[in-house]
Amino acid sequence: MNVNIYDTPEVQDFLKAVSGFDKEGGSDRAKQIMHRLLSDLYRLIDDFDVSPDEFWGAVNLLNELGSGKQGGLLAPGLGFDHYLDMRMDAAEAQAAIEGATPRTIEGPLYVAGAPVSEGFARMDDGSDTNAEVMWLTGQVRDTAGEPIPGAQVEIWHADSKGNYSFFDPSQSDYHLRRTIIADGEGRYSARSIIPSGYGCPPDSPTQQVLDLLGRHGQRPAHIHFFFSAPGYRHLTTQINLAGDPYTFDDFAFATREELVVEGKRIEDKAEAEKRHLQGPFTEVVFDVVLPATEDPEMQQRHKRARALEGEV
Amino acid sequence: MNVNIYDTPEVQDFLKAVSGFDKEGGSDRAKQIMHRLLSDLYRLIDDFDVSPDEFWGAVNLLNELGSGKQGGLLAPGLGFDHYLDMRMDAAEAQAAIEGATPRTIEGPLYVAGAPVSEGFARMDDGSDTNAEVMWLTGQVRDTAGEPIPGAQVEIWHADSKGNYSFFDPSQSDYHLRRTIIADGEGRYSARSIIPSGYGCPPDSPTQQVLDLLGRHGQRPAHIHFFFSAPGYRHLTTQINLAGDPYTFDDFAFATREELVVEGKRIEDKAEAEKRHLQGPFTEVVFDVVLPATEDPEMQQRHKRARALEGEV
Repeated sequence: MNVNIYDTPEVQDFLKAVSGFDKEGGSDRAKQIMHRLLSDLYRLIDDFDVSPDEFWGAVNLLNELGSGKQGGLLAPGLGFDHYLDMRMDAAEAQAAIEGATPRTIEGPLYVAGAPVSEGFARMDDGSDTNAEVMWLTGQVRDTAGEPIPGAQVEIWHADSKGNYSFFDPSQSDYHLRRTIIADGEGRYSARSIIPSGYGCPPDSPTQQVLDLLGRHGQRPAHIHFFFSAPGYRHLTTQINLAGDPYTFDDFAFATREELVVEGKRIEDKAEAEKRHLQGPFTEVVFDVVLPATEDPEMQQRHKRARALEGEV
Repeated sequence: MNVNIYDTPEVQDFLKAVSGFDKEGGSDRAKQIMHRLLSDLYRLIDDFDVSPDEFWGAVNLLNELGSGKQGGLLAPGLGFDHYLDMRMDAAEAQAAIEGATPRTIEGPLYVAGAPVSEGFARMDDGSDTNAEVMWLTGQVRDTAGEPIPGAQVEIWHADSKGNYSFFDPSQSDYHLRRTIIADGEGRYSARSIIPSGYGCPPDSPTQQVLDLLGRHGQRPAHIHFFFSAPGYRHLTTQINLAGDPYTFDDFAFATREELVVEGKRIEDKAEAEKRHLQGPFTEVVFDVVLPATEDPEMQQRHKRARALEGEV
């Protein structure tokens, strides 16, 4: 069409009206953010000569995305989760907080209310017979190297097909999801199975967007964690198991060098028996360091819509 | 937090990677538009110091919006539909196309496949006994004033409660939705009922956004039209019935002065009998002018997801 109307007084006045600048109620911050957002989008439409067909295609995609509750899946694919992490990292660097285990993205597949146990948990129900046994263990410490007894460790991960319980209704309730209270030395351990990587559903609107960008929707094998303890900063993080072809090519941009963990295959019978296992297994060790904070807000995970959390 | 990282090379490189600039496949236009969109959004997050709680609140709202298929309801509320109209108006002004009846927004409540009749249609099923009878009539002409015989006139509107059939399952199929083929003189007429204004569902995510902006979600009483005929530009428009408190305060920004129509109350018995009516009624006249075009694309409505259209 080749028309440019963004800079006209009509459009500029219209943007203020749409953003509610002439209205008494509402939130000033919401109005300011909406005005900026709409100004950016209107200018984009003008600059790229976006057609009604293209615009309504995008709206339809947003509807499809929301219908599948995939906003939280596309968001990391578009780098937002990692960008928010980069901003928090920068703020902590500014505040000279050092030595802590790096955060990384939460992803959309956490489910609240997993079974809680002390020190140790068996996470799998034994049904995934193709999977390698994983012995996952670690210690939670402060920046001075002192253990944090009783730290809460929430762990969730996929099965050997890359599927998550709850979202995959064929798995038992809370399969591969546990909360472990670390022991007096800050140690936790879990018997589970080695997860496989995750791929966005091929027909999903998220994958549709990635296809347009020439990108895949694969994640490497990984394990999610929340760590928390009174007086310490809440840590949302993941480890990637080394050797996955997507370890450094994660569609969700969650990989961080410090969080890539080499699993150790152990074939020694005595080691297996010590853990009440029948055969070889892979040991995965993840020790973490939490920085202290007195800010109660920093001691908790941020708010978002989470399955069964009932906070929405 | 007060950190600004948007301008760092890390973020700028990240934006290119997220947009698939280093990937072979996909669409170049999609990559360019995504890069611009994400750049704008990342900068907004930095400038407004958007917190993870706020970000995830917005993602959740998008999920809710999509779950309710409300993308097409919020879009006009945020002025996008009117903005696209302004751009098409400007393009036509540039091309010196004059004298045509103004377009205005389609809205999300069209349903394809309404019954077709020649010259006249009865649109209501007689169930809305509180409603005033509406006699809707008009002529379709070209810019020289000549009638366009056989023009197709699609009409849809709300009932006396402001609800639309299909979306309101209590109404009969295609209630208040008809396609009329204009007669040899380009004339169409319909017996229907005077519609009431429409209000966004109070608990909807669309209304939630409007509340944040201090805005209401009301539309004045209005009637939707598609006009089309081979050799003429497709016209998507609406008329507003004069006298509604929201006539010039439409949350969807669809009102245009030229499209505000004064209904005429007719109490004369002979006039009623001529139309086979029992008592007084309100006559609404809407004559339209379509500009000629040889472009087949301009002769059709633009593509979007429409109920029962099966084009999605």
